[in-house]
Order: sequence, then structure tokens, then C-alpha cells
Amino acid sequence: MAETPLRIAMIGLGTVGSGVARILQQHRELLQQRAGRPLELRRVVVRDLKKTRDVDLPGSLVTDSLTGVLDDPEVDVVLELMGGTMTARDVVLQALENGKDVVTANKALLCQAGDELFGRAVKLGRTIAFEAAVAGGIPIIAAVSQSMSANRIQSIQAILNGTSNYILSQMLLAGQSYSDALGQAQELGYAEADPTLDIDGTDAAQKLTLLVRLAFGISVPVSDFHVSGIDRIEPIDISSAGELGYTIKLIAQARLGEAGLALSVRPTLVRKDRPLAQTHGSLNAVALDGDSVGPLWMSGRGAGSLPTASAVVADLVDMAVGRAQLTFPRLGLGTPGEPLPIASRDEFVSRFYLRLTVEDRPHVMADVTDILGRRGISLASVIQHEAPEVSGDAASPHVPLIIMTHRTTAGAISAAERELDDLKTVRGNRVCLAVAD
Amino acid sequence: MAETPLRIAMIGLGTVGSGVARILQQHRELLQQRAGRPLELRRVVVRDLKKTRDVDLPGSLVTDSLTGVLDDPEVDVVLELMGGTMTARDVVLQALENGKDVVTANKALLCQAGDELFGRAVKLGRTIAFEAAVAGGIPIIAAVSQSMSANRIQSIQAILNGTSNYILSQMLLAGQSYSDALGQAQELGYAEADPTLDIDGTDAAQKLTLLVRLAFGISVPVSDFHVSGIDRIEPIDISSAGELGYTIKLIAQARLGEAGLALSVRPTLVRKDRPLAQTHGSLNAVALDGDSVGPLWMSGRGAGSLPTASAVVADLVDMAVGRAQLTFPRLGLGTPGEPLPIASRDEFVSRFYLRLTVEDRPHVMADVTDILGRRGISLASVIQHEAPEVSGDAASPHVPLIIMTHRTTAGAISAAERELDDLKTVRGNRVCLAVAD
Repeated sequence: MAETPLRIAMIGLGTVGSGVARILQQHRELLQQRAGRPLELRRVVVRDLKKTRDVDLPGSLVTDSLTGVLDDPEVDVVLELMGGTMTARDVVLQALENGKDVVTANKALLCQAGDELFGRAVKLGRTIAFEAAVAGGIPIIAAVSQSMSANRIQSIQAILNGTSNYILSQMLLAGQSYSDALGQAQELGYAEADPTLDIDGTDAAQKLTLLVRLAFGISVPVSDFHVSGIDRIEPIDISSAGELGYTIKLIAQARLGEAGLALSVRPTLVRKDRPLAQTHGSLNAVALDGDSVGPLWMSGRGAGSLPTASAVVADLVDMAVGRAQLTFPRLGLGTPGEPLPIASRDEFVSRFYLRLTVEDRPHVMADVTDILGRRGISLASVIQHEAPEVSGDAASPHVPLIIMTHRTTAGAISAAERELDDLKTVRGNRVCLAVAD
Repeated sequence: MAETPLRIAMIGLGTVGSGVARILQQHRELLQQRAGRPLELRRVVVRDLKKTRDVDLPGSLVTDSLTGVLDDPEVDVVLELMGGTMTARDVVLQALENGKDVVTANKALLCQAGDELFGRAVKLGRTIAFEAAVAGGIPIIAAVSQSMSANRIQSIQAILNGTSNYILSQMLLAGQSYSDALGQAQELGYAEADPTLDIDGTDAAQKLTLLVRLAFGISVPVSDFHVSGIDRIEPIDISSAGELGYTIKLIAQARLGEAGLALSVRPTLVRKDRPLAQTHGSLNAVALDGDSVGPLWMSGRGAGSLPTASAVVADLVDMAVGRAQLTFPRLGLGTPGEPLPIASRDEFVSRFYLRLTVEDRPHVMADVTDILGRRGISLASVIQHEAPEVSGDAASPHVPLIIMTHRTTAGAISAAERELDDLKTVRGNRVCLAVAD
């Protein structure tokens, strides 16, 4: 039987693209068997034809003519691996208009332009597959949109940014400072030259929007999330959390509660014996809670050439088999789902970890606890160690004061924080972290 | 648009069946939306019509006429949840012959009669879906057969039997004896009245055969596995393993190595900081290693009414969407795959934990270590605590001697064990456990 190949045009030949090319070459027969037909890499579009690549491709495959490829009637699937959002949006739209299906790993694109792209694909009867866009090699898109179809998902808690997780792990396990750990992440290629979007929580929030679309059927802009990053975490926070029995992780969370769906990405204290607390280095992890299946937990490599390419190629196999084309229209992505109330930031309920830097003198503790008490915030534990004999640069010694509260709202904590800032005995450098249940 | 329902006949209304019925009722609209058509529970076959059930079904649905249902042209999918293997085989075959697709959670059936049933289904162009047959609510069948399609799987290490894991966890965390923990597991419904297949490793081995079929494309009878159960584990093994930095788990393992594919189910010492060591109670867990994606880890509820039903209903949705029908023929289940050498039991390479009961007198240690040494087995560590002052029933005091070896083969260990049995100073009660890398 002559089997029609699935003809693929890959746009971009960077880290992930090279991995995809390598897997398509190395596992040619295996993939053909699993897909029922050959996966044929027909065109590879690059910006600079002269750049040396670490993957061997026939020269005839590689081109810098994007339009030529998008117009090529002998391309079935456009694999968008160029990154960025401006051009990528145009490429995906054009591919869809030209009757091609799309596979992408671009979470920023789907987060910003998802409504438009998904809507257009549904209208045109085309398919967008994006397993690689969230948590790299972890099949979380398949789990949420297919394996958990018998569930109403109650919550998602996840480590979705490998860079932040690497930095926090180095601070914990190697005792590094934040800036040393960041520097090392950049040296090892875990962090971009400009790591802003990774460490400020934006990248994790973009990924979470995609999971939220699938799990809760709604499209929420990142601006509605409670997002804070890891850049204010200091070694003393790592050690104090440890003393209290916790590990600090950048947790992306979506949770159905009384006030609606609470969405946040923030550094969070996680009990040491929880799997999320033990997910170290560049690994990602996702903890789901479904009303039928109960807790479900997955972890694996969230980034990197081959792990991400593994997810991309699985999407290509799904396309070749025809599964992706059946799945996509059933995800409800093209149309707005039932509206779901979104909990406001102030309604976010948690215990909180508060680290203040206070003057080491009488009545400071009374002032601080008075402010918290008047806001109805009760204390679960307090750590204040003796001040060091030599107090550095300051005239009067300043010491860290760590407070763990009982459950309260982010609104109450914020209000208290503003009052604390007005105390003369409290210094500016303040950290407030959530505590996972 | 009038949507044709997927018409389901469920055979069996036990624990899992009740869960399925409940989910189909409670999530009717959600499922219809996700499946693109209604999931219609058309018939439920029970043995005893008079038995009270804890799920509310219209009386007209329930019948005791198996043949009537299998012959009913208005049934699209037969959901086999009756358990056992004799009748279940006939039911599945008849359903396939009558042009119906099959969903089953019956790993014993698929392990024993898989070649026949899968082969027949492929010939007839029908589909068998069985996500619930392995690890309950964990979508491991989907992960291995779809999400990891870009990988050659290198190894599978898993906790697949909730009963054994519950017992081992109780021994570890609550300090219970083996028999007390088993009794409690039975009281709580985690263990059958006859728990033999759970605690002797058979159940886990049956599940592993299914994963091996999908991951390695071969059908291996359980008799080719190295299977041992947890019934000889004593509290001293739990505590000694702990002293050495390990937790004992019943690990089902398939691993590609130089001697071929090594298949085993055996109590294994797992380093305490590994996720498998921290999977407690009735949870299941699977650690996969793929050549593209690297390590991938999943855990969740491996049994129970709703978690298992969650996997069954996901299969039904896949059937309704048409995904399952596309996937099944691509799994290579109907035809023998490329042959793969199976490592013999004796070739199994591991470090080993050996617990002997020896007389507390001179030269015993020399005798024991001489036997091991002559087999080329070197010792990594030894624990022998002082004998208790009062030595119980024996005339001369006996003490446990714990030996952790360096890497060696199961063949060398077995030969040494036979020689040790001949030593007059060594008692019969001996335990030999593998140690995970």
C-alpha cells in the first residue's frame, strides 16, 4: 500500500528545531510505523542560510523563503518554531488560510493571540497542536484535554519555568546567592541573556493561561493573574523556609474556590515532603486535581532540545494518524466557554510568609504584631535570631524578622504591608510569599 | 445538528462499574461537549438483578441477559467490567465478532488472552481500549502509546500494585507487622479476601506485560518475568533498609540492557530521595525513560471506583470522538513485533540486600563472606547489631545479619544463597532484595 507522507515545513531551526530534525532522522522507521505513514520533513525555513547548524540536513531542504513555503501546496503541516509573536502570528494565520494545519511550541504566541488563532483555525476547519508549548516533554496538554475528560478539574499547581526552578534549586542545594545562581543558569544555557520573562513569572503565567483554557474553558489574560517573580528571594528566605519545614518554589496555580477561579504565579512555600518541593533543577512538574481521578502528578524535562522536540514530534504523529484533527475541534478553543468568576487578587486566600528587616530594639515586635493583629491576621510562627555581633554598615543593628501567618487574604496582607512600610523601625527590603496548603 | 449517541453496554456493575455509571450521570453535559455526541448508557448486565446497588439506574437499563446485549444491534461499545478471564474472554470475542468495539479494565484478561483478543480485533477492524487496565487513573497507556511516540523507551520502573504498596507503607510509616498491615488493607477494602495475586507480584507483572507490549512491541508471558512478592518482608528489613538510606517498594521493572530486556517484579530498595520511594499508600507511580524526552514521571490513584472509572470514561470519550479507533491499529498489538532478546533471570544485574539469620558465635561472618567472596560478590556494607540479652526461644542466640552487595548478577546471588543454606550457622529465614540504581 502506498502511504501518503505527512509533508512538514519547519519554520525555524534553533534548539527545538534541531531536535525535531534529529528525531525525524533517527527514528524514521519507528515513526512511520507509529504514524502509519512517513513523516516527511519537506522544507526548513531559516533566516540565515549561511549559519552553521549542529544538525545535518540536505541543502535542498533549507530555504529562507517563508512565503514560498507557506504557499507551497505540497506542505500539509507548518511547524512554527521561530519564536517571538509578531511574525509568528502572521505565519500561523497564513498557514491556516492556505489550508495547512499547524504545530507550535510557542506559548507566548498562543497566550497573546490564542483567541484569534484558535478561532480562525476552528472556522477554517484546521488544527493547531501545541503539546510542546507547556512543560516541554511532559504530556500535560494531552492529560488535561483527553485523559482527564471525565473530570471537572479542581486545581492545577505547577512548576512551569525551568530557569526559575534551576535558580531556586541552586540557592537551596548549593547555597548560591540569587545572582550567582542566575549567572550559572545563563552559562549553562538554562536562562536567556535577558531572563526577565522567566524570573518575573510571565513565562509561567503564559503557560498557565493555556492550561486554564483547556481545563476551565476560559480565556484569561495574564494581566488578570496575580504574578510575582523570584528576584527578591534571598538566601535567608531559603534557609528560613527550610527551618519552618518548607522549600520555596515558583508555583503557577489555578484553583476553583468560593470566590471563583484564583489564578496566580508566585514564589510559594511548599512543604518539603510534597513532590513539588522535590522537583529540582530544570525539571517541570504539574499536580492536577480532578473530581473523578483525584490527584494526578507528572514531572519531567520542561525544556531543552530533545525533550521539547519529543512533544513536537508526538503532535506530528497525532497529525499523521488523524487524532489531532479529531481532538482540536473538541477542545472548545474557538468559542468562549461558560463564564467563570475570577477571584480578585485581594481575595486570594493563603497562609503567608513575611520577611521584614527590623531594627533590633524594644517594642519593634509589638508594633509589627499590632498592625497584623488589627487586620485580623494571626501568627502561626515567628523566627527572629539573635543579631550578629558586628552589624555591618548600619549604625543600629537590623535583623530579619520572619513571620508565618495563619490563613488570611492577600488583601489583608497587602494592607498590613503598607502600614508596616510606614514604621520607622522596619526597613524597605520586605518579602511576602504564599504558603501552599 | 442531531448527534448520534455512542451506545454503551456495560457488563458488570461492581466497584468500577458503579463509578462509571455515576460519572456518566453527573457529567452528562460536560462529556457530551467533550465527546461531540452523547455517551448513552444503553444496557447494564448484572448477574443478580435483585442485588442492591449504590448507584441509581433506571430499571429498564439493567438486565441479566448477556447474550441479548451482545447481540443487540443498537450497542456500539461493550464495556467489559465483569472481571475474571474465562467468561470475559468469550464476552470480548463475541462483542468483537458482533461488530462492537470494546473498553476493558481487565489486565488479567489482556495479559492471558491479549494475543488472541488484540489479533482478532485488528483482523475485524475493531478497537479495544484499556487505559484503566494499568495504574487506574494514571494515563500511562496514553503516555506510552501516544505521547512518547517520538521515543525509544529505555526503561519502565513502576509501583503498579496498590495493595502491596499500602502494606509496605504501613510497615514503614506506622511500624506495623506484615500481617497486621495486610489485615488493615483488607478491612479498608484495599486488599481482596484472597490477596495472593496482589502480594506475590502477579498483578503487577500482568500490568507490566501490557506496558511492555506497548513500549517494546513484544508479548512476553508473565512466566518469563522474575517475579517475587512482599510476603517475606519483615519489620527488620524495613528498618535496616531505612538505616542504609532506602525504602522498600514492590517495583515492576522493564529495562533494556546489554543482555536484552530485563523484566522483573520484586521488592526493591529504592533510595529515599527518589520519587518512587515517596509514593505511599494505595498510590501508583510510573517512571519512564525515553531516548528523546529523558525521564518522565507520573503518579496517582491506581485503583478505586472513581479513579479507575475516570480512565474508563476517558476511553469512552476517545471512542466517541473516534480517536481510539485511529490509535488502536497503530499500536502493533495484533502482530508480533521485532523480536527482542529477553535477559534470563540469572543475568539480572543489581546490587542486592541480603538478610540472613545467623548464630551469634565466632567465625560465622567469615563463613558467610567467604561464600560470597568466592562467587565474586563484594560487600558494600554490613549491619549486625548486638544480640538482645534475652534470646527468645532458641538455645543459642540468633541475630540478623544484613549485607548490601556491590553490583552482581541474580545468578551469582542465587548460587551463593544455596551455599549459605548449607551452613549450619545460618537459619532458613532468608531475604534477598534488589537495590534500584
